[in-house]
Amino acid sequence: MAGRRWYHVGGRIVTVENRINGALPIQTATEAASKVPSEATVLVSGFGSVGYPKAVPLALAESAQNHSLTVISGGSVGEEIDEALVTAEKIERRFPYQSQPQLRAAINENRVAYHDRNVSDVADELQYGNLADPDIAIIEAIAVGEDWLIPSTSIGQTPAFVESVDQLIVEVNSSQPLALQAVHDIYRPGPPPEREPIPLSSPGDRIGQSKVEFSPDALCAVVETDRADSPYSFRSPTETDRAIATQFGEFVREEMERSSVYDDSLRLQFGVGSLGNALMGELNEMSFDGREVIYYGEVIQDGLLDMIDSGRLSSTSATSLALSEDGQKRLFEDIDRYSENIVLRPTDVSNNGAVIDRFGVMAVNSAVEVDIYGNVNSTHVGGTTVLNGIGGSADFNQNALVAVCTLPSVLADKGISRIVPKAEHIDHTEHDIDVVVTEQGVADLRGLSPLERATEIIESCAHPDHRDSLREYLQKAKTQGGHIPHTT
Amino acid sequence: MAGRRWYHVGGRIVTVENRINGALPIQTATEAASKVPSEATVLVSGFGSVGYPKAVPLALAESAQNHSLTVISGGSVGEEIDEALVTAEKIERRFPYQSQPQLRAAINENRVAYHDRNVSDVADELQYGNLADPDIAIIEAIAVGEDWLIPSTSIGQTPAFVESVDQLIVEVNSSQPLALQAVHDIYRPGPPPEREPIPLSSPGDRIGQSKVEFSPDALCAVVETDRADSPYSFRSPTETDRAIATQFGEFVREEMERSSVYDDSLRLQFGVGSLGNALMGELNEMSFDGREVIYYGEVIQDGLLDMIDSGRLSSTSATSLALSEDGQKRLFEDIDRYSENIVLRPTDVSNNGAVIDRFGVMAVNSAVEVDIYGNVNSTHVGGTTVLNGIGGSADFNQNALVAVCTLPSVLADKGISRIVPKAEHIDHTEHDIDVVVTEQGVADLRGLSPLERATEIIESCAHPDHRDSLREYLQKAKTQGGHIPHTT
Repeated sequence: MAGRRWYHVGGRIVTVENRINGALPIQTATEAASKVPSEATVLVSGFGSVGYPKAVPLALAESAQNHSLTVISGGSVGEEIDEALVTAEKIERRFPYQSQPQLRAAINENRVAYHDRNVSDVADELQYGNLADPDIAIIEAIAVGEDWLIPSTSIGQTPAFVESVDQLIVEVNSSQPLALQAVHDIYRPGPPPEREPIPLSSPGDRIGQSKVEFSPDALCAVVETDRADSPYSFRSPTETDRAIATQFGEFVREEMERSSVYDDSLRLQFGVGSLGNALMGELNEMSFDGREVIYYGEVIQDGLLDMIDSGRLSSTSATSLALSEDGQKRLFEDIDRYSENIVLRPTDVSNNGAVIDRFGVMAVNSAVEVDIYGNVNSTHVGGTTVLNGIGGSADFNQNALVAVCTLPSVLADKGISRIVPKAEHIDHTEHDIDVVVTEQGVADLRGLSPLERATEIIESCAHPDHRDSLREYLQKAKTQGGHIPHTT
Repeated sequence: MAGRRWYHVGGRIVTVENRINGALPIQTATEAASKVPSEATVLVSGFGSVGYPKAVPLALAESAQNHSLTVISGGSVGEEIDEALVTAEKIERRFPYQSQPQLRAAINENRVAYHDRNVSDVADELQYGNLADPDIAIIEAIAVGEDWLIPSTSIGQTPAFVESVDQLIVEVNSSQPLALQAVHDIYRPGPPPEREPIPLSSPGDRIGQSKVEFSPDALCAVVETDRADSPYSFRSPTETDRAIATQFGEFVREEMERSSVYDDSLRLQFGVGSLGNALMGELNEMSFDGREVIYYGEVIQDGLLDMIDSGRLSSTSATSLALSEDGQKRLFEDIDRYSENIVLRPTDVSNNGAVIDRFGVMAVNSAVEVDIYGNVNSTHVGGTTVLNGIGGSADFNQNALVAVCTLPSVLADKGISRIVPKAEHIDHTEHDIDVVVTEQGVADLRGLSPLERATEIIESCAHPDHRDSLREYLQKAKTQGGHIPHTT
């Protein structure tokens, strides 16, 4: 594990000890914000609501200038962007993901145009795919030099963003420990059509360096700040969360017994959130009979730190440290130790379909609702009102060896079934979902026809209070006929 | 190009000159059929309705024994399986794709349980993923030895199928030319979690051999036959097909101008069918300014032979030769020349998401209907009645650099719009579709919000006769609010 804390330059091992390295254009946030044109496409770092720029967006929000911006991030960012710039009416267009209430409201009221996009697609589509024509990037870093920066608590799309622009503003954040350089592994796949396979043969491998490089001409401002990420807050697992986790644990045990793919190791991805965190808690209690357990996903949550501490998790790969305040403290205080087991990668690698396939990842993601035929709505309540976005869930569901959808069978406070006859919006089709798990049980849909899936989901996953009405729907639909019967 | 017509054994180059090689258990079709248990999961070769076994399935259909079979194929197969065995009521369950009217009717009447599956998933899920527990494989070959066979007009899932069973029946078909060995390139990715990347750096590369190998203990019968594949029949392009092709050609021209990814070459995939064939006709008229044009897809149709003949297509990679009678004749009579430009691969490679991504493929697939927000139904009429199945369309749409959906704006004979307010079934979500093309025009959806997409699709792609009612729907939906407005 020697060498983990450093980056390599021409064979030499170097540790960055200063935040500002070289003669750099240091400016105030207000000065830097003035570099952003009134109408511009602005790329910002950030994923899992951490590692995003804070001072320059706040200065932009406060600026008297009118702005009409397209803002593209890695994943979700904090209130300094998605609240302050929205309130100031400066964001016109936003992709690929969001999680702040002010922006969500603006999107649902069509004051902001939102393009909800698989996060794995964004880097390529920005560089080669006509998604947008970027003007400037604002990136949070723990350290910066004349032609390089080291990202902070997330990597996200930063390497592709930096490659895509002629104008670059770097925010150097002294509240983020310099030791974070130990967890970064920056590798950006080359352009198609001669793109090489990603040379990752194990989830913990290092194939890049800590630094993101750029042309020195691009760096137009360096801004110093010490404003911290807003940490995540997880609710304590509910009884339902724990029951789902128990059902999921049972499925994992059976799957390990069934398939030789899991003989030596189990590779998992969990969606971000309190339920995902609860599922990790369940795994932390399980026996794996000597199997190596590895996380290959998007975000590192508190539950994964627990699993590292208990020695159950040998390796963790993600693109963001989406931790609670406690979790962040634990990590920062003991980063030398944790960096033995944690790697952060760009989303091009963390969410890469080819790598997810090669590692035989079991993907575990939540949903708003699932229909009786196995179609999953993970983004739009009532089919119309967006929550956050698809994020990386399709990247994992589409490429996993087994795609598991976990959710409570009912909306806790309303007694409304989340198992529905027909999903109002579909983010993951019946073709990509293998298993559904609720607190009621497990529906293994592999190899089943739609009618068989419907019975399996109703009888194993629906809440007993709602089974009769679902059965009635299915019976009525069947009289109308067809391969996937529905009532008209 | 030397060596193309041979397979390699320990460094030596060998051409197979005999169909039967060694002391093999040659049997009649009836004898071989008796090896299939009454209740069994039977794997059959075949993709694009060619290269499937014929004699043994017909003998099975005629057998007095009762059968209740799960039949899993590479892709679509001919009437000897999906008509004869259905009429004899011997198929209980069928995946992953079908295209014969008798089976389709049985599926829609729920007499056969159908699991409609992305073809790229089948091999892995069969070997590692709990899709089914196979008993026996029946594979069509042009030649067979004690521990190898050479596939005929399609490869499909044959390598994985042969690896998955203890009992193997080989049909050696003398109506298929031995020279077909020149186009085969058999490479099956190893198992996860230590799976290596597929070592393909260009669509025309050869990374395997002509032969599929198996354990000699598995071979329980070799059956000789000369029954030909039923060739495809394509309708002549309609005026609408030609108008769609013209619109698509215009999009391709603009895309080549816009993106440096296409500076040296253009890599395309087309869905099987008459419209796909018409689109290739359009490309055969286009100027590519010296760019190499390459096909990386599932099936080789007549239009691709035309492009090879005209020197426009430098390389063609697929898993099946889905040709018309004329096309098959052209290919078979001149296979030496065509084999310079044609490679057939297993679906694990032809439909592999990683390779599609690395090559920057532009995917072009058709649909039953598209909704105003860009969701695509490609399988179920009215949301309930299945046509063929999803096939490989999601493999390409999900991993392509640009996913294009081409379809006529209306059902020709009914005046019904194929641009609809809300798709009745969704196979490809709004997150995976980039561009919609009808005979009316091109809607480029990249970077657009749902409301912007709706306007773009209605105004550019819908038929003028239907635009008013779609505009009305959108207006009414907007009054109800939300990110993706719908009327309730």
